[in-house]
Amino acid sequence: MAILVHLPSFMAVPITAALREAAPDITVWNGREAAVAEQVEAIIAWGLKPGVLPAYPKLRLVCAATAGVDKLLAAPDLPPGMPVTRIVDPGQQAGIAHYVLAMALRHTRALGRYAEQQRRGEWKRHPGRDVSRCRVGVLGLGEIGSEVARMFAAIGYPVSGWSRSAKHLPGVTDFTGDDGLDAMLAHSDILVCTLPLTPRTEGMLNRQTLSRLPKGAFLINVGRGEHVVEPDLVALIDEGHLAGAALDVFAKEPPSADDPVWNHPRIEATPHIAADPSYELVARQCIENLRRARDGRELLNQVDRQAGY
Amino acid sequence: MAILVHLPSFMAVPITAALREAAPDITVWNGREAAVAEQVEAIIAWGLKPGVLPAYPKLRLVCAATAGVDKLLAAPDLPPGMPVTRIVDPGQQAGIAHYVLAMALRHTRALGRYAEQQRRGEWKRHPGRDVSRCRVGVLGLGEIGSEVARMFAAIGYPVSGWSRSAKHLPGVTDFTGDDGLDAMLAHSDILVCTLPLTPRTEGMLNRQTLSRLPKGAFLINVGRGEHVVEPDLVALIDEGHLAGAALDVFAKEPPSADDPVWNHPRIEATPHIAADPSYELVARQCIENLRRARDGRELLNQVDRQAGY
Ligand SMILES: NC(=O)c1ccc[n+]([C@@H]2O[C@H](COP(=O)([O-])OP(=O)(O)OC[C@H]3O[C@@H](n4cnc5c(N)ncnc54)[C@H](OP(=O)(O)O)[C@@H]3O)[C@@H](O)[C@H]2O)c1
Ligand SMILES: NC(=O)c1ccc[n+]([C@@H]2O[C@H](COP(=O)([O-])OP(=O)(O)OC[C@H]3O[C@@H](n4cnc5c(N)ncnc54)[C@H](OP(=O)(O)O)[C@@H]3O)[C@@H](O)[C@H]2O)c1
Repeated sequence: MAILVHLPSFMAVPITAALREAAPDITVWNGREAAVAEQVEAIIAWGLKPGVLPAYPKLRLVCAATAGVDKLLAAPDLPPGMPVTRIVDPGQQAGIAHYVLAMALRHTRALGRYAEQQRRGEWKRHPGRDVSRCRVGVLGLGEIGSEVARMFAAIGYPVSGWSRSAKHLPGVTDFTGDDGLDAMLAHSDILVCTLPLTPRTEGMLNRQTLSRLPKGAFLINVGRGEHVVEPDLVALIDEGHLAGAALDVFAKEPPSADDPVWNHPRIEATPHIAADPSYELVARQCIENLRRARDGRELLNQVDRQAGY
Repeated sequence: MAILVHLPSFMAVPITAALREAAPDITVWNGREAAVAEQVEAIIAWGLKPGVLPAYPKLRLVCAATAGVDKLLAAPDLPPGMPVTRIVDPGQQAGIAHYVLAMALRHTRALGRYAEQQRRGEWKRHPGRDVSRCRVGVLGLGEIGSEVARMFAAIGYPVSGWSRSAKHLPGVTDFTGDDGLDAMLAHSDILVCTLPLTPRTEGMLNRQTLSRLPKGAFLINVGRGEHVVEPDLVALIDEGHLAGAALDVFAKEPPSADDPVWNHPRIEATPHIAADPSYELVARQCIENLRRARDGRELLNQVDRQAGY
């Protein structure tokens, strides 16, 4: 058995080490140059340029190194029946929820405004906004979105969520479909995007949908940059319809220095750090899935390639 | 029945209105000038200068307008048997917990550092710290501290708490006494002060106690400024033992413009806004307690003047 790790080095190094540690009997190559192409059975990757996959005739399995698989599914030469798996990591889900909560609380309690006052040496109190009156709408109620919704509810925010199928999570109002989306947007003072990037979700946060949010609403995006039509978001902030945004993901990463999504005073932008998966878990899950693929057993966290997530 | 509202006007105006709305049969005066001294039975106040109380011969009750009573109990002419009540407001408790959580999450996830990077246009990821490995110690597990501890636990922080009597809150490790304090400090990456200000708690966060915190620890104070020996805190931050602090309360409010607690780059300082009580609730509770005092019944939220809270 042989696994090829095909990742940027900051992930490749620890994941390669974790694979070798977890399964000394499996051959692990870090990088295409080291690999014996005829022996590669599984590949762990983030994105796959055209031409990579056809080089590995014995490939049985493509493993995403994180929760999102949009870059992998975009590979034009991904063979039709090739199974693709993704990472489901409760630690990563919690980490993303903590990031979202941090941004939401800072916005709700106007702590950025107080920080500006402190820089000016100004002691001035403002009427406070209460979490219990700040309605949150979560786009996507999968592994990540459901943890985000749970934590918001646990600390007293009114929470709604939107997904393809209704979820019935405790304390979370369900919305589905186009009508459900419109209804939820109209009642979301904070909108959180935890969707996967698919042909149906790409560009869905645009002038038309974001305009449905109440005046003064705030967007938090931890899905993918391409969910947002970034110039529309910036325009709605500049026009005063939206109060601002917290963005962890961007259509182009890193964004250009002069891109307003990256240097707008009302956008808090972070370099895709909401949460990484555990590298040990990535390694263990890849090994387990390679064993399952060899035995013809059902895979863990296999992606529905048709649905795109 | 007559109540005197003796408060700064930003609280006096709404509380006076709420009292009149809730009990049209009770006379309510906003400010000492308007009042008929011989008729005043209850006074709602924040602090009481010497000479105020002796002016009201029929006084039965002193009502604090918030949760803390340190300023009221400090009045030198508070008659020995005079009952003092304070406000217990679940909304205020939650508000304080939200403030604390916002500051804790921003620190844990290094979001201030990313905000600085964004200002410089720098896209750079750092190894993240995980909430599940950031141990929180809460000083005081009363109405406010127990809500703070509950919310921390609900989102995955390991939580301990210190109070006079052991509390046995779900998911919260108990500490009491001086030994308990030392033990908790040694294991608190984030220390939160929700104590009342009493002779025993004044100045207790000083070089000696704060030095017991692990290197890189962070202090959040929503108790009273006088809990902290502010120059000791600043020195420990400058020496690199503490990573920083979030302070909502100060020994002097507002602090002087050149005071490092107010303009230190590693201290996030806010103007005592963690949470106000509901003015309707202050009014309702004062009316209820005046009725109870007249009938000789037990009062709601009466302060133990001996203990100081
Ligand atoms: N910022 C970061 O650091 C970071 C880290 C990890 C992941 N992510 C992003 O987070 C995304 C979500 O991850 P996950 O593990 O939560 O995925 P998941 O478990 O597959 O959940 C996806 C959710 O989105 C819903 N959904 C998908 N398409 C939809 C549509 N057209 N209409 C309505 N709802 C739709 C799904 O509905 P059903 O439940 O009805 O299927 C599901 O609830 C990833 O794809 C990735 O892009 C970001
Ligand atoms: N920043 C703001 O906006 C804001 C707003 C409201 C209140 N506050 C502050 O928050 C404080 C706490 O309010 P609260 O309603 O939570 O008070 P509380 O219900 O009376 O609780 C006080 C807690 O502190 C503990 N305690 C008191 N003295 C102690 C000592 N010497 N050693 C160990 N533990 C001790 C008590 O222990 P036991 O339970 O064993 O008695 C109790 O758990 C107020 O006094 C006020 O100063 C700040």
